Amino acid sequence: MALIVQKYGGTSVGTPERIKNVARRVAKFKAQGHQVVVAVSAMSGETNRLIALAKEIQSEPDPRELDVIVSTGEQVTIGLLAMALKEQGLKAKSYTGDQVKILTDSAFTKARIISIDEQNIRADLDNDCVVVVAGFQGVDEHGNITTLGRGGSDTTGVALAAALKADECQIYTDVDGVYTTDPRVVPEARRLKSITFEEMLEMASLGSKVLQIRSVEFAGKYKVKLRVLSSFLEEPGEGTLITFEEDNKMEQAIISGIAFNRDEAKITVIGVPDKPGIAYQILGPVSDANIDVDMIIQNVGTDGSTDFSFTVNRSEFTKAMDILKNQVQPHIGARNVVGDNKTAKVSVVGVGMRSHVGIASKMFRTLAEEGINLQMISTSEIKISVVIDEKYLELAVRVLHKAFDLDQEDA
Amino acid sequence: MALIVQKYGGTSVGTPERIKNVARRVAKFKAQGHQVVVAVSAMSGETNRLIALAKEIQSEPDPRELDVIVSTGEQVTIGLLAMALKEQGLKAKSYTGDQVKILTDSAFTKARIISIDEQNIRADLDNDCVVVVAGFQGVDEHGNITTLGRGGSDTTGVALAAALKADECQIYTDVDGVYTTDPRVVPEARRLKSITFEEMLEMASLGSKVLQIRSVEFAGKYKVKLRVLSSFLEEPGEGTLITFEEDNKMEQAIISGIAFNRDEAKITVIGVPDKPGIAYQILGPVSDANIDVDMIIQNVGTDGSTDFSFTVNRSEFTKAMDILKNQVQPHIGARNVVGDNKTAKVSVVGVGMRSHVGIASKMFRTLAEEGINLQMISTSEIKISVVIDEKYLELAVRVLHKAFDLDQEDA
Repeated sequence: MALIVQKYGGTSVGTPERIKNVARRVAKFKAQGHQVVVAVSAMSGETNRLIALAKEIQSEPDPRELDVIVSTGEQVTIGLLAMALKEQGLKAKSYTGDQVKILTDSAFTKARIISIDEQNIRADLDNDCVVVVAGFQGVDEHGNITTLGRGGSDTTGVALAAALKADECQIYTDVDGVYTTDPRVVPEARRLKSITFEEMLEMASLGSKVLQIRSVEFAGKYKVKLRVLSSFLEEPGEGTLITFEEDNKMEQAIISGIAFNRDEAKITVIGVPDKPGIAYQILGPVSDANIDVDMIIQNVGTDGSTDFSFTVNRSEFTKAMDILKNQVQPHIGARNVVGDNKTAKVSVVGVGMRSHVGIASKMFRTLAEEGINLQMISTSEIKISVVIDEKYLELAVRVLHKAFDLDQEDA
Repeated sequence: MALIVQKYGGTSVGTPERIKNVARRVAKFKAQGHQVVVAVSAMSGETNRLIALAKEIQSEPDPRELDVIVSTGEQVTIGLLAMALKEQGLKAKSYTGDQVKILTDSAFTKARIISIDEQNIRADLDNDCVVVVAGFQGVDEHGNITTLGRGGSDTTGVALAAALKADECQIYTDVDGVYTTDPRVVPEARRLKSITFEEMLEMASLGSKVLQIRSVEFAGKYKVKLRVLSSFLEEPGEGTLITFEEDNKMEQAIISGIAFNRDEAKITVIGVPDKPGIAYQILGPVSDANIDVDMIIQNVGTDGSTDFSFTVNRSEFTKAMDILKNQVQPHIGARNVVGDNKTAKVSVVGVGMRSHVGIASKMFRTLAEEGINLQMISTSEIKISVVIDEKYLELAVRVLHKAFDLDQEDA
């Protein structure tokens, strides 16, 4: 008997019929003697409908009240799924984030989980009950409803698995695993049987969109065994297992995949005085405004000043530019702030590159042969990322996928 | 400065535009220096949509899970209204029933309020904040979400007014007050400037549908000044005040109105042994099944047995019949159980009838002249009710409204 946490996304619970399918799948696991906790998203389209409704009232909805509204999406799903499980003859009980209680900080619309009280859930499980938990939501210390931000249901699933010390956290989604790159861009893309946490972290943060980055961090931190599976296949198969032990692989592939992110915007602060503390003075106000910064690059200055570049999500570009121009630039005495929100990021990812040389030069040569200019370059032990003009994105992904032989089964 | 509780029903908050109108109305009261608490229903149609969704999963939805789902309707409204109030430049904060906390019993889908913790609300009011509370919902001692049943938002409004010792509870609805009868049936129906609690109680319970009966009971019990107003008129006027002191009226009208209820079903237990405790043995199991019983009639038996009749809401007819036939009849040894769910109830209501004779005979004569047969008769100090074939309902209401001169301003 194992304790399994399953997470189903919006399309997996998008209609009453699909909710019944989820209930049937859960019933199979119960029949095998497992204990099951299910975390669910809102029915697909519901979150967007609620946000649109809020925007009819306020063009920039109050974050606290937006969370009150948006969190109802998952609340409807948990009730429906609990009913569907009862129809399968199972005991079932739904929990909102508040009811669990999933304690978060008070950063409305992008809260972070602080702790999960697993006592009531465990009592229900011991009572042979399937527990259905609303993903994406929690409650702060004052009892305010919070949401974890887009994709936060994955994090709920992993956090529940960690709190309950579950044997496995299964993320059911509309793809059957993690691919070497997006099959919509490269039809030859292959499903990976396993991928390391580090690679997954890079793949997710770089926009592979299979899993939300925070959920992978969480899984890594608490050593949660995480598996990505399809919720639409009758037999979901084995999906992609996310592993800790890279050396489990007999023969390590050099590169596991090509990740990319279309929603990238680049900002450069020009003529920054080259002295200690300047990075903090630039990024502090941006971070205070709850804007996530992705790539950060600073070149060594030659004339006592330097240029400082970083990327943010495109949706936060205007807000970030505003902070930099009006608060940061006058304060630190920079010469100018320039931005470009028509950029994209492409990365090659793989733990194998640690023991191989020449990956970077192969990547740069491949792109150069297509005439693609590199605006920013950033490297880590297991990935190399470049920022390019967004119009070359698909081309770049395709040629890199081929150059690194990712379409070959024995790559 | 007064403390006012306002309650807005589903049609009053049916669209974003109407929610903005509500916010403007609240802003007027704030501008006059009042403290305002607003209780709201779900946007019109929303509760039915959610129930329909639940029924796609379970034809008879699990009550606990149904409450989890249905309570989201009001939760969306409170968020939207709080936003609209902020757009008006006001401080505003939303509360779910759980957040308040509105403690109820655990009778899912028809819970009763046990207590309201008004401390946080009062702190917000003192901080110049408009408080927006989700109507219709609460939380039981175990933290389960409950709903108060249809129309329960009125009860929330009155209960909040009682807990906060508010100066007035204003129920905004789609009519501009309480009428002598339903204007859709009798166009000559007039708005009453005031009505006593006792009359209102009879009017509401008999199906006038302006206010939910429990809210009126609550208002009477806690001496809450209750006023019914239109939420659609630019200037809502004075509506109808519900008073305690019947002698406030200079000249008491004999009859205040004609109430009626279409959703009545009649059940008769035939050949009941005429001995003490039999009424409890019949109605106990019905009540245990949470079925509300309305009229109850028992004739004195002549041959050691008697017939026992009562009415229930038509939607619970099948369930009640089932209990009576399978549990009650064999247990008490009754001869038969018969039912009729094509009945309706018509009542004349008025505190004035206490000091007048001949009201009953006038009512019966009026109906007899139209050839309407009376299946059950029940009287109280301030009302006389009859159960008739439902096809005569409109006719009965019209002729009684005229017979008691309710269309005359000085009636």
